[in-house]
Amino acid sequence: MCSEFDIIHRYFKRSVSGAVLGIGDDAALIAPTTGIELAISTDTLVCGKHFFPDADPYKLGYKSLAVNLSDMAAMGAKPRWVLLTLTLPEDLVKQNIAWLSGFSDGFFALADWYQIELIGGNTTAGALNIGIQIIGEVAAGKALRRSDAKLDDDIWVSGKIGDAALALQHELGQLALHPTEIEQCLPALLTPIARVELGQRLIGLAHSAIDLSDGLMADLGHILTASGKAAWIYMTDIPCSSVLEKYRQQSVVMNCLLAGGDDYELCFTAPKINRRKIDMLSAELAIPLTRIGEIYSGEGLSVRDAQGNAMTLEIRGYDHFRS
Amino acid sequence: MCSEFDIIHRYFKRSVSGAVLGIGDDAALIAPTTGIELAISTDTLVCGKHFFPDADPYKLGYKSLAVNLSDMAAMGAKPRWVLLTLTLPEDLVKQNIAWLSGFSDGFFALADWYQIELIGGNTTAGALNIGIQIIGEVAAGKALRRSDAKLDDDIWVSGKIGDAALALQHELGQLALHPTEIEQCLPALLTPIARVELGQRLIGLAHSAIDLSDGLMADLGHILTASGKAAWIYMTDIPCSSVLEKYRQQSVVMNCLLAGGDDYELCFTAPKINRRKIDMLSAELAIPLTRIGEIYSGEGLSVRDAQGNAMTLEIRGYDHFRS
Repeated sequence: MCSEFDIIHRYFKRSVSGAVLGIGDDAALIAPTTGIELAISTDTLVCGKHFFPDADPYKLGYKSLAVNLSDMAAMGAKPRWVLLTLTLPEDLVKQNIAWLSGFSDGFFALADWYQIELIGGNTTAGALNIGIQIIGEVAAGKALRRSDAKLDDDIWVSGKIGDAALALQHELGQLALHPTEIEQCLPALLTPIARVELGQRLIGLAHSAIDLSDGLMADLGHILTASGKAAWIYMTDIPCSSVLEKYRQQSVVMNCLLAGGDDYELCFTAPKINRRKIDMLSAELAIPLTRIGEIYSGEGLSVRDAQGNAMTLEIRGYDHFRS
Repeated sequence: MCSEFDIIHRYFKRSVSGAVLGIGDDAALIAPTTGIELAISTDTLVCGKHFFPDADPYKLGYKSLAVNLSDMAAMGAKPRWVLLTLTLPEDLVKQNIAWLSGFSDGFFALADWYQIELIGGNTTAGALNIGIQIIGEVAAGKALRRSDAKLDDDIWVSGKIGDAALALQHELGQLALHPTEIEQCLPALLTPIARVELGQRLIGLAHSAIDLSDGLMADLGHILTASGKAAWIYMTDIPCSSVLEKYRQQSVVMNCLLAGGDDYELCFTAPKINRRKIDMLSAELAIPLTRIGEIYSGEGLSVRDAQGNAMTLEIRGYDHFRS
C-alpha cells in the first residue's frame, strides 16, 4: 500500500532548477528576481462541486492547474512556482492508484508547457479536495488590477464565451446537444486554456483585467465595483462558438453566455487609442479579442440588445453558498 | 444568508500594509525584500483527521495558523504573509455563523501577534477542510534545512514533548488522565505554540532543523535521511511535562513521547562548540532547550535506555494512508 511519502515521491517530487529548494523540507525556498513583485493566488476544486466524481484524472490534473494559471494571466504575471495541497479519500489511494498517476500526468503536462515548478504541497486523507497555490512574477507597479478601469475604456473579451457552461448544462441534462456539438464544447469545460501569454502582453495596453471564472456579468461586475464605474455591453457582440450561436435564443443558453463561468477567458478594459495594437496582438497570438462594450461613469452594468435597448435580465454569477 | 463574498468581507478581508495588494483581486501582490529568499509552505487540517468535528472554532483558527508558523520556524524564516483556503459545509455557513466568527477571531489573534497579513485565499462549499499557505523571509543561503546535520552535532529539542499526543490519547479514551492533568496537557493539543522567534535565532547556531509534527522519531528520521547520517538519543533525556513523566512507563505514553506528533517543538542539530550560546539563548527566550543525543556516521536512529543500551521499539510516525 501507498504511504503519504510514497505518493509524494512517486508522483509529485521532481528536481527543481528555478527554485532554491523544492519538495522535501519544512518549506520550499525561492529567490525572487530583484525589483519584481510576486503575484500569489490559490484556487480549490471540490469533488461534486467543481467536477464530477468520475472525472478523468488526467483532465482534472490539467484543469486544476489551468484555473490557477488563469489568475496569473488576469494579473499579467508570469507564473513560475506552484504548490499542491491534495486531500485524497483513503479508498482512492488504496484501490485506484491509476488516478494519482493520471492526475499527476495531466498536472505536469501543463506545468511543463509553461516551465512552472512544483515546489511544495501537502497530502492528507479526507474528502477529495484539490488546492493549488500559484506564484508568478510581474514588474513592480505593472500588474493588471480590477480597480483600474478608466472612463471611456473599451471592454474586451478573449476567445469565445459560454461553451464550458453549455457543456455543463448538457451533462446535467438541462439541454441536449448533438454528439458532435458536445464534442466541440466539452474541452472548454474539461481542459480550459488559460490566457497566460495574452495576460503578460496586455501590460501597457489594458487598464484592468479579470479572468472569467464566475461568469461575464459577475466578473465584469467585479471590475466595475472595484473601479467605481459603470458599463454597457452589447449582447450580440459577445463572441461565442457556432454551437452556442445555434441555441443562443434559449434562455438557458443566454445564461451560459452572461453568467456561465468556467470560461477562463480574459475580460479587460483598455483605452480606445490602443484598439489597433490590441487587434495586432490578437492576430499575433491567434486569439480572438472582441470589443463588447464601454466603461462609463456611475454604477451598474447594462446589457443592450441589437437595437441598443437595455435588456431586463435575471442572472447572477456562481456563488458557492447561494442556492 | 451568507454568500461567499459576504464571508470573505465580513470575516477575513482587512486592509494590508505589508503587501502591495491584499484580498480582492485575481491574485495578491507582494514586494519581497531585495536579496532575501522566500520560504513557502502549506498545511491542511481535515475535519475528523486533524480535529474533532465539535472542535472550538477559535482554537481551530489559532491552531491552523500555528502549525504553518511552525514550518517557518523550522526553516528559520520570519513569517510575513498568509493565504487561507476554506472549504466549508453549506450547513455550517447557514446555521452556525458563530463558527466563522470564532475561527476568524482565533486566526487573527495569532496573525496579529506575529504581524502576519492575510493577503488571499479561497472559499468553497464542501467537506470541512482548512488549508493555509504561509510565506516568510530568510536571508539568502541561511535557511535551516533538514539536510545539513553534521557528524558529531548535538541533537536538541525545544520545550517539552508528548503532551499533545497524551491529551489526544485521553480524548480517544486510550487512557484516563485526572481532570487537572488533562487541563494541563490540552493546550499543547489545541493551541500549540510555534517556535517562531527561536527558529530565526537558531540561524548561525544550528546546522539543521525540523518541527515535530509527525513525532520525534519520524521527524528526526527525516533529518537523518536527508543528511545521510545516523543518530542515537537517550530516552531518559527527552524532556516532558510532569504529567507525562508520571505515566511514562506505560507503552502508550512512551509512544506519545517518541511518535506522538502534533508537538510543534523544534528538533535541531548543532555543533558542540555552540552549547553555551544555545544555553544562553534558552535562558533569554525562556524556552527549555535540551540535548537528547548525537549525530554520527552511518544510518538509522537508535534510542538508548538509562544504562546506554539500545531499546527495541515498535513505533512509527503518523502517516495518513497507513493503517
